[in-house]
Amino acid sequence: METIYEQVDGGVCAPHGFLANGLHCGLYADPKKNDLGLIVSETECSAAAVYTTNKVKGAPLLVARRHLEKTGGRARAIIANSRNANTCNADGEEKAEQMCRLAAAQLGIAPEQVIPASTGVIGQILPIEPIASHMEALVKGLAPENHSEAVKAIMTTDTVLKEAAVRFSIGGTVCTIGGMAKGSGMIHPNMATTLNFVTTDAVISQELLQKALSDIVKVTYNCLSIDGDTSTNDMVCLMANGRAENHEISEADGSYEIFREGLYRVLARLTRMLAKDGEGATKLLECTCDGAPDQETAIVVAKSVIRSPLFKCAMFGEDANWGRILCAIGYADAEFDITKTDVELASVKGEIAVCRNGMGIEFSEEKAKEVLCEDEIFIRIHLKQGDASATAWGCDLTYDYVKINGDYRS
Amino acid sequence: METIYEQVDGGVCAPHGFLANGLHCGLYADPKKNDLGLIVSETECSAAAVYTTNKVKGAPLLVARRHLEKTGGRARAIIANSRNANTCNADGEEKAEQMCRLAAAQLGIAPEQVIPASTGVIGQILPIEPIASHMEALVKGLAPENHSEAVKAIMTTDTVLKEAAVRFSIGGTVCTIGGMAKGSGMIHPNMATTLNFVTTDAVISQELLQKALSDIVKVTYNCLSIDGDTSTNDMVCLMANGRAENHEISEADGSYEIFREGLYRVLARLTRMLAKDGEGATKLLECTCDGAPDQETAIVVAKSVIRSPLFKCAMFGEDANWGRILCAIGYADAEFDITKTDVELASVKGEIAVCRNGMGIEFSEEKAKEVLCEDEIFIRIHLKQGDASATAWGCDLTYDYVKINGDYRS
Repeated sequence: METIYEQVDGGVCAPHGFLANGLHCGLYADPKKNDLGLIVSETECSAAAVYTTNKVKGAPLLVARRHLEKTGGRARAIIANSRNANTCNADGEEKAEQMCRLAAAQLGIAPEQVIPASTGVIGQILPIEPIASHMEALVKGLAPENHSEAVKAIMTTDTVLKEAAVRFSIGGTVCTIGGMAKGSGMIHPNMATTLNFVTTDAVISQELLQKALSDIVKVTYNCLSIDGDTSTNDMVCLMANGRAENHEISEADGSYEIFREGLYRVLARLTRMLAKDGEGATKLLECTCDGAPDQETAIVVAKSVIRSPLFKCAMFGEDANWGRILCAIGYADAEFDITKTDVELASVKGEIAVCRNGMGIEFSEEKAKEVLCEDEIFIRIHLKQGDASATAWGCDLTYDYVKINGDYRS
Repeated sequence: METIYEQVDGGVCAPHGFLANGLHCGLYADPKKNDLGLIVSETECSAAAVYTTNKVKGAPLLVARRHLEKTGGRARAIIANSRNANTCNADGEEKAEQMCRLAAAQLGIAPEQVIPASTGVIGQILPIEPIASHMEALVKGLAPENHSEAVKAIMTTDTVLKEAAVRFSIGGTVCTIGGMAKGSGMIHPNMATTLNFVTTDAVISQELLQKALSDIVKVTYNCLSIDGDTSTNDMVCLMANGRAENHEISEADGSYEIFREGLYRVLARLTRMLAKDGEGATKLLECTCDGAPDQETAIVVAKSVIRSPLFKCAMFGEDANWGRILCAIGYADAEFDITKTDVELASVKGEIAVCRNGMGIEFSEEKAKEVLCEDEIFIRIHLKQGDASATAWGCDLTYDYVKINGDYRS
C-alpha cells in the first residue's frame, strides 16, 4: 500500500508538542523586523544536525555541535537570531553560550539542551543585551500558532516565509514532519547560509534520525546553488520528540523508508522555495540530469549547470543560449561521454529540444522564448549512459542580485 | 647581472619575422567590426599550445592539436575568427580544416602548418563563404604594423585591445616575446574563452617551449577568473621562429630562466588586462596569498576569493565586507589553519587591515571606503604557515555583467 503524504499547515509546529515564537529584540534597526526566534519541544527530543563544510565555522555551530555531543544527541530548544552571524569574533562562542543560558534559564531546562543559530553579517560583535532583555517576552509568547513568527526572526534578504509540513501514517499511527528555512544568498552545495529547522513527532532512534537527515540533505539542500558561495553558518537541525507514539523506528526497514520519504518531501519543498527566493531571482531553475552512470555524476552535472553565471544570466534574459548549458556540463568534474548528451528546456508553456548527442539542433527561437518567459524553468539533461539521476535547484542571475549584495551591510 | 626586460610596442609583431592582419569578412553584421585575423611567421616556427580542460572542446582546438601532432610541433600561421565559436556543430572540424586550407593556399604553405581558432557563440554553423572570399585580401594586407588589426578580429565583448611585448637579452643577443589576447566573459581557471597568441624570435627547443608555456599559464591565465565558467574554445598558442639567432635554449639553464621570466611578464600583463576588462567590470581585483604551506594552496585560496560572487558584488558596492573574503578562504579546497589568517585591502589610496588571525578587527569604514573607491583593488591574504605565494586576478560583479550576458546572442 502506497503511503499518502498530506501537506499540512503549521510549519515546525505541525508535529505534536512543538511551540514557537519570534519577535524584534533590536538587532535590526527596523522595529517591524523580527530578529530573535525560539522553537521548543514540550518534551525532550532526539536531535540530529548537519553543518557547513566551510573551514570558517560560525561560533553558534561550534556550540551547537558541542551541546549535542554533551547530551548524546538530545535537545529541547533552538534559539536563533538574524542580522548578525556571530562569526569571526573573539567572543563568539561565549556569546552563543550566553544565548543558550538565557533561553534555558527562562525555560527551566539545561543550557546544553538548547541549540543556538545565527545568520547575518560576519565579523561584527553580537550585542547580547537586546537578546537578554527580550528572552522573557519571547518565552511567554511561545505557542503552536506562532511558528511563522519564528520563521520571520531568521529571515535576512528572504522575501517570503519558507515553511512546509507533511503528515503520513507509520504502521497506522499518524506522524508529522514540519520545517522552516531561511537563506537566499550565499547558497551553494554543502549548506550555504541556510538555516533549516525541522521537527517531527515520530519516534525514531537518534542514529537513524541522523542517517536520514544526512542522506536527504545530500539530495536536497546540497543540490541547491544560488551563487556558489558556501557560508560559514549553515546548519540543518532535526528534532524528534516522539509524541506520535508510533512503534519506534530503530532499523532501516519499511517504517524508516516511509519516514525518510516524508523528510525528503519537506526538505525538497523548502529547497525549491529557497531557490525560487534566491537573491534578486526572477525565475526558479530546476535542472534534472538522468541517464548518468552513477548518482554522483548526475549530481555534479546538474549542479554545474545550475551554478554557471553565464547560463543564469541567459535565463534572466530568456535567451535559449544552450551552448552555455553544454559548456557547463563539459566542465563538470566527472567522467562521462559528452557526445551522447541531449538537452531540453521546458516550462508550463511546453518543452523544446535544443541539443542532441552533444550537437546543436535547429529549433524555433520564437517557441523557445515562449517557454523561457515563465517563472519556473526546467532544464533536462539526458546523458544516455546509465540509470542514475539527480535534480539541482537554482535561480537566474539578475541586476537585483548585484544590487542586494553590493552593499548588504548598510 | 640582472636581466632588463623592456616593454615594447608591436604586440605579436614585436619579435622579428612576424606579420599580421585582420579585417571584416562578414561574420558580424557591423561592417566596422573585424572578425577574421591572421598571424604569420616568415619562417617555420616551433610551436607549443595549451587547451581548455572542458570536455566540450571546440572543433578548432581539435584541429589545432591534430596539426601540431602531425608536424611535430611546427607551424607557420594562426587563422582566427570571432562571432562564431565553431563548436558543437556536426561540421565543425571540417570547417576548421577548410579555414586552414584557405589560408595555406593563399600563403603557399601546408594546411598542417596553420593553427585555427574561433571564439563567439556556440552551436551555430560557421559560414565559410565570408572567410573564403576575404582570404586573399587578408593575406595581401599582412604587415608587421597590422598587429592590432589581428587583435581586433578576435574581440567579442572586449572593450580594449590587449597586447604586450618585452625585449631582453639572452647571452648578449636581443630577443623579443610578444602577445595578444581576447576574452572578457566565461573566464575561469583552466583557460576560459580566452584566445592568446604569443610569438617570439628566440631560438628554443620545442620541448622547452611547451614546458615554459605550461608552467607560466598555470600562474597567469589559470589564476584568472571572471565568472567561474570554463569555456570550450580557450587556447594559448606560442610560436618561436628563431630569428633572433641566439644560442639555442635546449636545457633548463640560466638562458631558459631568462626566457621563462620574459614569457611570465607578457602573460601576466595580458592576464591583468583580461581581468580589468572583464565583462561589465568597473574594478580590477588582484588577490595575493602568501605564507601558504605550498604554492597549490596559495593558488586555490587566492582563486577562491577572486571567484566569490558575494565578494565581487561587495567590491562593486565598495563595501569592506571582509567576512565574505574570510568565508571564501574558508571554503577553498585546501588544508590549512584558518585561525592564523590576516587580510588587508589596498589601493593607491593606502591600505587597511580588516582581519587578524581569522577574527575581525576594528577599522575605519571611512578609510575603507576611500581605499575601495579606486579602480584597482588589492586583496592581501597572509596565511602565516609557510613560504609559498600566488596571485589571482578578477573583477567586480556588476549590473552590466548581467546585462551583457542576459542576451548575448542577439
